[in-house]
Amino acid sequence: MTTKMRSEIAEQPTALRATLDSLLPKIGEIQAMGERTRQLLFIARGTSDNAAVYGRYLVESHAGRLSALAAPSIATTYKRKLDLDGVLAVAISQSGRTEEIVETLAWAKDCGARTVGVTNGGADSPLAQAADVALCTVAGEEKAVPATKTYTTQLAALAVLAIGLGADVDADELRRVPDAVEKLIAEPGDIEAVVEGLADKPGVVVSGRGLAFSTALETALKLKEACYLHAMGLSYADLLHGPIAVVDADTPALLVAAEHSPTLQGTIALAERVVAAGAAAYTIGGGTALAQAGTAALNGPDLPEWLAPMGLIVPGQLLTEALARRLGIDPDAPRGLNKVTQTD
Amino acid sequence: MTTKMRSEIAEQPTALRATLDSLLPKIGEIQAMGERTRQLLFIARGTSDNAAVYGRYLVESHAGRLSALAAPSIATTYKRKLDLDGVLAVAISQSGRTEEIVETLAWAKDCGARTVGVTNGGADSPLAQAADVALCTVAGEEKAVPATKTYTTQLAALAVLAIGLGADVDADELRRVPDAVEKLIAEPGDIEAVVEGLADKPGVVVSGRGLAFSTALETALKLKEACYLHAMGLSYADLLHGPIAVVDADTPALLVAAEHSPTLQGTIALAERVVAAGAAAYTIGGGTALAQAGTAALNGPDLPEWLAPMGLIVPGQLLTEALARRLGIDPDAPRGLNKVTQTD
Repeated sequence: MTTKMRSEIAEQPTALRATLDSLLPKIGEIQAMGERTRQLLFIARGTSDNAAVYGRYLVESHAGRLSALAAPSIATTYKRKLDLDGVLAVAISQSGRTEEIVETLAWAKDCGARTVGVTNGGADSPLAQAADVALCTVAGEEKAVPATKTYTTQLAALAVLAIGLGADVDADELRRVPDAVEKLIAEPGDIEAVVEGLADKPGVVVSGRGLAFSTALETALKLKEACYLHAMGLSYADLLHGPIAVVDADTPALLVAAEHSPTLQGTIALAERVVAAGAAAYTIGGGTALAQAGTAALNGPDLPEWLAPMGLIVPGQLLTEALARRLGIDPDAPRGLNKVTQTD
Repeated sequence: MTTKMRSEIAEQPTALRATLDSLLPKIGEIQAMGERTRQLLFIARGTSDNAAVYGRYLVESHAGRLSALAAPSIATTYKRKLDLDGVLAVAISQSGRTEEIVETLAWAKDCGARTVGVTNGGADSPLAQAADVALCTVAGEEKAVPATKTYTTQLAALAVLAIGLGADVDADELRRVPDAVEKLIAEPGDIEAVVEGLADKPGVVVSGRGLAFSTALETALKLKEACYLHAMGLSYADLLHGPIAVVDADTPALLVAAEHSPTLQGTIALAERVVAAGAAAYTIGGGTALAQAGTAALNGPDLPEWLAPMGLIVPGQLLTEALARRLGIDPDAPRGLNKVTQTD
């Protein structure tokens, strides 16, 4: 039986092409907003928050603007006004209907920010309606509870946003993403070895740094949601500041890096340290150098670092789906979760 | 045998008094800097990062200025300049010698920020020397690897900083903190019940929101470092967005809230949901209302919400120390960790 999650993973190349076709023409509109933008404030939860982490690193490292993740409780629980003049607030929600996110975007506008909404919920969704500029992803309806195609298309929308804000990248490379994702779905690497390695473990540490940190967080979230695994997503710098203590023969690590990245050497060093500690180090991406340092390897995309997170997550999605089935869990409908999450 | 960690937990009232005596006279100096400050950027790792989360929520909720946590890799790995005019960069490091933090503070100054250093390493430490204003905590030497008195005094320094930035609080209440912490050390609540509840579990979810989110993160970090427990620190809003799936009979929750807080009702609702899911919900603080909703209760301090995190962490420290001993781990020297962590 093919699960919905597996089908939706496979729909990502199509979803990415449609999203790029729809959003690349909006770059001019974003450029006009960018002239008045000193910094960015991302507003999101869950998977969308992991997309925000990608957006934050991309905008800081390539568009040279300070970026931050908002604490929605300041708006919704503490109801405190801040001075957001010169701030571009970017709210991200797959459904476009999560009240906390829509409310926090309205608060940001009220505080003086210009606003962007990134959503798969369509131009009629409350989030798209509330934003000055709506970047609507074109992923089609997503039926499985764990987000896959809505996540990668969010990343595509954020890459378009960064280009509009003047990122020092070759924008044409964005068109290579759908094919690179397609290739990874066909050849993700040794998923079975990692499934077997995780099947009897209570937890896993998932680590990456810089742009790939978003992939570590999102892979960990998928493994928590759909496999009930205690998966901790950490930058490797934070991992070394304490949580490394939990890595042992019962707690493998899953380490992710882009092949052409200043964070690759640190990720290789971490893989070597994990293996030396007697634990398994499974790797995602990072080329042959990272693969050789670890215990079993999942492939990464043939993409420059700034676009790599759209591919690096794919083996993690396939791993999650396969591990859930191996554990007897229906990955389409894990316990305790609904498709649209409402929090106060 | 008394561990160093247990002794240092008990030294916190003295350390807090000495730190307040030393730092309260600096409020004028901070006020002068505050006039040119549009927003704050915190630079930290590990336990100090959890102190930064407190600082961030305190400054946003009570001093009305946007605050963010820095991504040090932008400075040290990607070497990208950002426009930090009008930004007050606050670097936090217990030793004052973590090169990544000192380097990122120097980067912030180079990008146009004014700078503050919070450290227990003394006025001669590289961090204090690099900062425009040094807020030196007076915790004395900390010998156990898990930080305790250096953490609570960091929170005290950040409370002084917020007062200097014009927080709408009664500054005199800060003087109540050492006594409140003393009382909690004497009467922390039912530590033994929680130790027994966690002793055979692979993991625990630790959750709080708003100002108490810092306590959830720091309690989770202590349990990871010293008990090798898969402890996930999450805001309860993020918990409900996916990770709630991991909570089951084998995965208890540890829930923290200040007694007088707009986040108390949400924390009580979460405790009820966890118990309904068949899992144990241990509580820290939140008065009798939260205690009654959970399975076993640790006490909170008799302090207003903005100061409560200095007390709320204390039962978590005592729990960590007792659980480590129960598991046969030396809490003073957990595996894989050094007192001064260096990362690139």
